[in-house]
Amino acid sequence: MSHVRVHNFAISLDGFGTGEGQSADTHFGHAGDRLHQWMFATRSWQQTAGSSGVDHVFAQQYGPGIGAEIMGAGKWGHPGWHEDEQWKGAWGPNPPFHTPVFVLTHHTRPSIEMEGGTTFHFLDASPAEALETARKAAGGQDVRIGGGATVIRDFLAAGLIDHMHVVQVPILLGRGVRLWDGLESLEDAYDIEAVSAPSGVTHLTFTAKSR
Amino acid sequence: MSHVRVHNFAISLDGFGTGEGQSADTHFGHAGDRLHQWMFATRSWQQTAGSSGVDHVFAQQYGPGIGAEIMGAGKWGHPGWHEDEQWKGAWGPNPPFHTPVFVLTHHTRPSIEMEGGTTFHFLDASPAEALETARKAAGGQDVRIGGGATVIRDFLAAGLIDHMHVVQVPILLGRGVRLWDGLESLEDAYDIEAVSAPSGVTHLTFTAKSR
Repeated sequence: MSHVRVHNFAISLDGFGTGEGQSADTHFGHAGDRLHQWMFATRSWQQTAGSSGVDHVFAQQYGPGIGAEIMGAGKWGHPGWHEDEQWKGAWGPNPPFHTPVFVLTHHTRPSIEMEGGTTFHFLDASPAEALETARKAAGGQDVRIGGGATVIRDFLAAGLIDHMHVVQVPILLGRGVRLWDGLESLEDAYDIEAVSAPSGVTHLTFTAKSR
Repeated sequence: MSHVRVHNFAISLDGFGTGEGQSADTHFGHAGDRLHQWMFATRSWQQTAGSSGVDHVFAQQYGPGIGAEIMGAGKWGHPGWHEDEQWKGAWGPNPPFHTPVFVLTHHTRPSIEMEGGTTFHFLDASPAEALETARKAAGGQDVRIGGGATVIRDFLAAGLIDHMHVVQVPILLGRGVRLWDGLESLEDAYDIEAVSAPSGVTHLTFTAKSR
């Protein structure tokens, strides 16, 4: 069976995966790019430059072996995107996914084929139903749950995630969307490791205990 | 000027410093002793046994150089303690403070002298006022802010803390009293370091930037 994985999901010390005040131009609201600077500094991101330490090693787990992504409507678009027929996501003509991407939304629309192998599909479905669809599209490879926080939380609560990598960034956002709400005793289902990086972030990995 | 310090303050991954359902017997509510097992395993706690690694090194910063502690009423007693005239705190006849301890409460009572150098005083005062009183009692030594979460948060918000050591434990409590609420952009006032320990906890230190 293919695995279900989360990678590079960044949260603030106070647990917010995105800030408040999201718009088409400010994808993470008042967080700006502060949750992802650790990643921009890596060779994984910059390709020919950047650090090759622990941040890079984690960051480059993102792509290999992934055959499809599932994301929430809040990641796909700014509030109100479903009234914007031209909206094709925040990533330009060649998005960094390079696989089928299933967007969970009540506002479905026809699929959008982008450059580089990314096709956006729109599903009004439960986590389990969406995963079944994504697994078929992944052709035996793994499925990445791309966020935002609400979607990851829903998949965790449904017991559907095998591996999760969360990056805790030493800032306090104070407001936004929390990752951890409603997940009491998550440690019963996962082996959790933490490793701090010289950059200041802490990488947390969650590995599902055998079920 | 003496410093104001926080040591060994443990929180869950989701930021709770104590659980729900506190009583005279369950000082941390449904958290039980799960937030402090890392500390019980150290030589600092066990004296003649236990680990002497990074958890120990942090834990043993707790006492030296401290001349007084300030704590909240929620740490001092279970809900309703002020109707219990026999209550003398949860630590037995010889509490682990060995200094004057100032309990912030609207329900003041006469001071209580314990064994081992601990005397509990009861103050109905603001953080700044309480600190002034504690500093005098500390005789030039540092003042420890002992928690709970609400008291630490109030002292942070008032800009009164110089050094803070928080220990993040890899469990999700889901409910209780949060440490981080209302502290947006705390990183502007502090240099923050993180170091993960083999035990699984992550030590976070906050050092006030020069003001």
